[in-house]
Amino acid sequence: MTQLLPEADRKTLLPPLAETGWAAVPGRDAIRKIWKFRSFSEAWGFMSRAALVAEKLNHHPEWSNVYNVVDVTLTTHDCQGLSRLDLDLAKAMDRFAPGAEIQRDHGEPVSCLCEIHARKA
Amino acid sequence: MTQLLPEADRKTLLPPLAETGWAAVPGRDAIRKIWKFRSFSEAWGFMSRAALVAEKLNHHPEWSNVYNVVDVTLTTHDCQGLSRLDLDLAKAMDRFAPGAEIQRDHGEPVSCLCEIHARKA
Amino acid sequence: MTQLLPEADRKTLLPPLAETGWAAVPGRDAIRKIWKFRSFSEAWGFMSRAALVAEKLNHHPEWSNVYNVVDVTLTTHDCQGLSRLDLDLAKAMDRFAPGAEIQRDHGEPVSCLCEIHARKA
Amino acid sequence: MTQLLPEADRKTLLPPLAETGWAAVPGRDAIRKIWKFRSFSEAWGFMSRAALVAEKLNHHPEWSNVYNVVDVTLTTHDCQGLSRLDLDLAKAMDRFAPGAEIQRDHGEPVSCLCEIHARKA
Repeated sequence: MTQLLPEADRKTLLPPLAETGWAAVPGRDAIRKIWKFRSFSEAWGFMSRAALVAEKLNHHPEWSNVYNVVDVTLTTHDCQGLSRLDLDLAKAMDRFAPGAEIQRDHGEPVSCLCEIHARKA
Repeated sequence: MTQLLPEADRKTLLPPLAETGWAAVPGRDAIRKIWKFRSFSEAWGFMSRAALVAEKLNHHPEWSNVYNVVDVTLTTHDCQGLSRLDLDLAKAMDRFAPGAEIQRDHGEPVSCLCEIHARKA
Repeated sequence: MTQLLPEADRKTLLPPLAETGWAAVPGRDAIRKIWKFRSFSEAWGFMSRAALVAEKLNHHPEWSNVYNVVDVTLTTHDCQGLSRLDLDLAKAMDRFAPGAEIQRDHGEPVSCLCEIHARKA
Repeated sequence: MTQLLPEADRKTLLPPLAETGWAAVPGRDAIRKIWKFRSFSEAWGFMSRAALVAEKLNHHPEWSNVYNVVDVTLTTHDCQGLSRLDLDLAKAMDRFAPGAEIQRDHGEPVSCLCEIHARKA
């Protein structure tokens, strides 16, 4: 059973991800990022590498692709919310797409994910 | 410029696709199919082959993936609706996933896509 | 450090692989199999799934591809010979290509890999 | 039928490829390049993009992969030698791996491919 990410970790680990473009999904304990590549080929190269790490972690994204855009949402089914696995997958994905444009017109600040009790209340 | 699929072709070409599980997307001139594979690996093998044919046709799907499920919507941006390219891509995808389970609990019958004028009126 | 496959395991585990088309590589403690698919697309679907399992096992094949042919050699660098990882990867690959044609005109019977001491002598 | 690359084109088009690391394969009218990436993941991302362009061109490489190394030989079966397709695929591959290390300890200068008659004599 995967453990829900503790509050202390959320406060230290989510803000750096927010800086790279990850945002909170409204109404879910999940993070989302949208990459815009220069071509389908570039998007697919990214997805091919992300697929490898997802399978290695045995933790898979919810993702969609339309031509050069890849839209990724991460959460952990097991614990119904963010776990350490989501952070690991997010950081790996960030390494695979250093040059892509990031869309930032969605979601909410990750700060709203920082307090588990507040979120569930 | 890609041509919108003529009515005559819709009436002959869409019903066979409907039988394999393609349905009309409500409010769009688009078709959609949802495959459920046995694993992420099997889903990814399918997507990897679909990516090849999409790039070859220079016609790409709107698709999403969550673990073993692949959800594909096809339409042609150029002509803002279904074109021959969508049928070609749909048929290729069908060939790549003979054993997968098909979800049929979405969309509308393709018959609603068979009359261009009625749809646009 | 990965352990070299013990003799007892070789005698029970290699023959079933030999039946599916794996053969001994002359002069090496390695096994090899050659798949012939119907197209590059089919070969690539196979390789894409094999890549996932290789990365998951952190154990990668020596492989080459020419159009519809995929030629795979497995051995473990760490222990300079066959290990349990090679068997795991071989069996996974076999599951990904049930319909492909297997070329059997290469290599030697796996029986020559069954005795570690004899082989090294 | 694909046309063998004419001498004039060889003299102008092969030297720029040689500068990026492509070399002549001894005894064949073919070019070869070896990339060394930082990981299997990076190698696989490259191969995944190369597969797309190969399928699009309907022209496929002879290639092998061992962990982070990808070894590519290009020639055209149709005309039994280099064609324009090989140059197109070579240039596409070069674009997909800007940061990789190139091994240059193999092959012969491409200048030996520059004269078709001399080569065949």
